[in-house]
Amino acid sequence: MPHYDPSNIFAKILRGELPAHRIYEDGRALAFMDIMPRAPGHALVIPKAPARNILDIETDDLAYVVQVAQRIARAQMKVFAADGITVQQFNETAGGQVVFHLHMHIIPRHEGVALKPPQSDMEKPEILAEHAERLRAALAG
Amino acid sequence: MPHYDPSNIFAKILRGELPAHRIYEDGRALAFMDIMPRAPGHALVIPKAPARNILDIETDDLAYVVQVAQRIARAQMKVFAADGITVQQFNETAGGQVVFHLHMHIIPRHEGVALKPPQSDMEKPEILAEHAERLRAALAG
Repeated sequence: MPHYDPSNIFAKILRGELPAHRIYEDGRALAFMDIMPRAPGHALVIPKAPARNILDIETDDLAYVVQVAQRIARAQMKVFAADGITVQQFNETAGGQVVFHLHMHIIPRHEGVALKPPQSDMEKPEILAEHAERLRAALAG
Repeated sequence: MPHYDPSNIFAKILRGELPAHRIYEDGRALAFMDIMPRAPGHALVIPKAPARNILDIETDDLAYVVQVAQRIARAQMKVFAADGITVQQFNETAGGQVVFHLHMHIIPRHEGVALKPPQSDMEKPEILAEHAERLRAALAG
């Protein structure tokens, strides 16, 4: 497996070189909106530590990311009145990975509504900002 | 969300009422082969604690499950000479969940090979047994 490459777009978001619609942040993890959501409210959770994917991440960092993912999932259920949540985590190109900084996809689901294909449509920034704000409020409440 | 129902098939596997091709087991988690693999080597990791999904599981149990999942993923890369790993975790029917005991799908992937649809074909028991044995050996080695 190649080594971690700090030029990936999520590393740039972590360094503040690219913007993101941030939902939650602490010293170890960041959650933000996927700009090409497969369903409304689709969020990503990443570690701050450099890790390509599940194969190289420190186990403690992975455990930390998943507990943030759990909090996001619970918030999404309320904010989007979701019927369920789909969690996906892709490793290497063959595994579906496109950005090579570990990330978990947390996707609110509704009965009878299929996921959009990956990377199909860029969402409007004002929608993403509103979704992030509502998730932040739910996490704070 | 409905409460945890101990009549689900994974609870029956945990109680020894149904067989499984076991890969790894300790006091808190069990990993075994999916009998309808979406790719060869498809494994499931579950907590021993009763939990319906990510919405109700104790955070410590979730963190424990994901660290076992990481070990399984690393073993699958070697055993199946995989090019990547796809991790999926479904919550409630709308989220893709079929068995209502939390489980993570850990699926070895190869370049250019699509996943089979969920629940498409039952794998032969001798193949599942062989895959479980090779994964157990990789985890022990």
